[in-house]
Amino acid sequence: MHGLGNDFVVVSAAALPTEPEVLAQKVCDRHFGAGADGLVFILPSHTGDCAMRIFNADGSEPEQCGNAVRCVARYYYERISGARNEMAVETRAGIQRVWLEAGGTRVRVDMGRPILGGKQIPTTLEGETVVDQPVEADGKSFRFTGVSMGNPHAVIFVEDATRFPVDEWGPRLETHPLFPQKTNVEFVTVHSPSQLDMRVWERGVGQTWACGTGACASVVAGVLTGRTRRNVRVRLKGGDLDIDWREEDGRVYMTGPATVVFEGEWLG
Amino acid sequence: MHGLGNDFVVVSAAALPTEPEVLAQKVCDRHFGAGADGLVFILPSHTGDCAMRIFNADGSEPEQCGNAVRCVARYYYERISGARNEMAVETRAGIQRVWLEAGGTRVRVDMGRPILGGKQIPTTLEGETVVDQPVEADGKSFRFTGVSMGNPHAVIFVEDATRFPVDEWGPRLETHPLFPQKTNVEFVTVHSPSQLDMRVWERGVGQTWACGTGACASVVAGVLTGRTRRNVRVRLKGGDLDIDWREEDGRVYMTGPATVVFEGEWLG
Repeated sequence: MHGLGNDFVVVSAAALPTEPEVLAQKVCDRHFGAGADGLVFILPSHTGDCAMRIFNADGSEPEQCGNAVRCVARYYYERISGARNEMAVETRAGIQRVWLEAGGTRVRVDMGRPILGGKQIPTTLEGETVVDQPVEADGKSFRFTGVSMGNPHAVIFVEDATRFPVDEWGPRLETHPLFPQKTNVEFVTVHSPSQLDMRVWERGVGQTWACGTGACASVVAGVLTGRTRRNVRVRLKGGDLDIDWREEDGRVYMTGPATVVFEGEWLG
Repeated sequence: MHGLGNDFVVVSAAALPTEPEVLAQKVCDRHFGAGADGLVFILPSHTGDCAMRIFNADGSEPEQCGNAVRCVARYYYERISGARNEMAVETRAGIQRVWLEAGGTRVRVDMGRPILGGKQIPTTLEGETVVDQPVEADGKSFRFTGVSMGNPHAVIFVEDATRFPVDEWGPRLETHPLFPQKTNVEFVTVHSPSQLDMRVWERGVGQTWACGTGACASVVAGVLTGRTRRNVRVRLKGGDLDIDWREEDGRVYMTGPATVVFEGEWLG
């Protein structure tokens, strides 16, 4: 399955296999395996309708993945009898509420409240927010806004995100000493108060087609810096996400597609 | 399936679909599709046990592919009742004879006789062979041996193929005016008269893990230049191929693995 080209092998299982991180590296290999950004397990849950665990192609386990949870929701909705169009998915970052739309092909996800405190994101900076702060890498100066959506993001507004050399500056900012747990990096251009272009460098992965938590973080940064409204369409390399940082509950809601590509049996 | 990391989606069908080159681009896309170097169809044949057609990720159709034919042979052998461990596969370059070994997991392929004439390879050079000829690209001088195995190859012996900047020089040599139909380019290091290291830039594809016809061409070039024997192990990025350019019939035999990764149903 994929969410805007962020692609996953999704399996439903009674329990995690032994060494899921080793299996993920094998399955996700794009020449010797099935090929994917991550291997996602749908598991039984005591606190939600189901639980999900995701292992990246490099074997690392992220706290959360906005594109993967949409795929999990569609998979579960289509295959599990009695599944309702409102679900609770247990992740390592807590329960995520999701709503199926358009016959199950689009999914709205409650991504929770952004974490804005400098130490909590985490960055090495103090303060209740980290907004348009300077960061220097290899002699080049940027300004970033720090946002955690369960995982850390550094949002950088640039003149034209679609032409920005993400592969050059992404890795340098990801590992900058300002970010003690490293960081995802978003390069964002404001088209209008309701539309952004975004390119993303994902921590431990590299440049990807789309990053759901990154799109949320970008809109939060857009609001914090007065550049956007709260309800924004974010255009990513792989397609569009609609992000809504609601004033009434302070939570971020993300709506986007979940696409099934093939289904089959692993024989590797 | 894959042959040394050169990976394919292999399907058996009664006939080609309409616009197979469009389907190939969709299926081979590594983020929005299943992801592969090529889409391979196993089709009925009047002249062989079966026919194969292969479409690359860019939609182009090569005459032949040594790694794909091994996958075709294993697929056919395992799934078609009455299949024998010696088969004839019809390709656009003619009939290929194959032999299944090691329970069907290794396949020996008769890759035919190399074509050595300058005009026939094709190159712009005259002569019965094109051996260690100079070629210059962007001010850098190489010497290449031209060999066609149904598709054109320029074999270049270098000091250390495993560290050679293939991505830099491959595309420049592929499109050099010496090669009117472009060319595959092999960078080869002689370890011993019976062992080569090879890296390959495939015409219309880019650098790949392995190229069966390229391994054959490299051994033919090794023999023509007095560097190797006729029976040689070629070590590629994705694994080993055993190549035998037999003196008695002048044909090249290639033996290597064919690996099944997953099977399933396309839903894209």
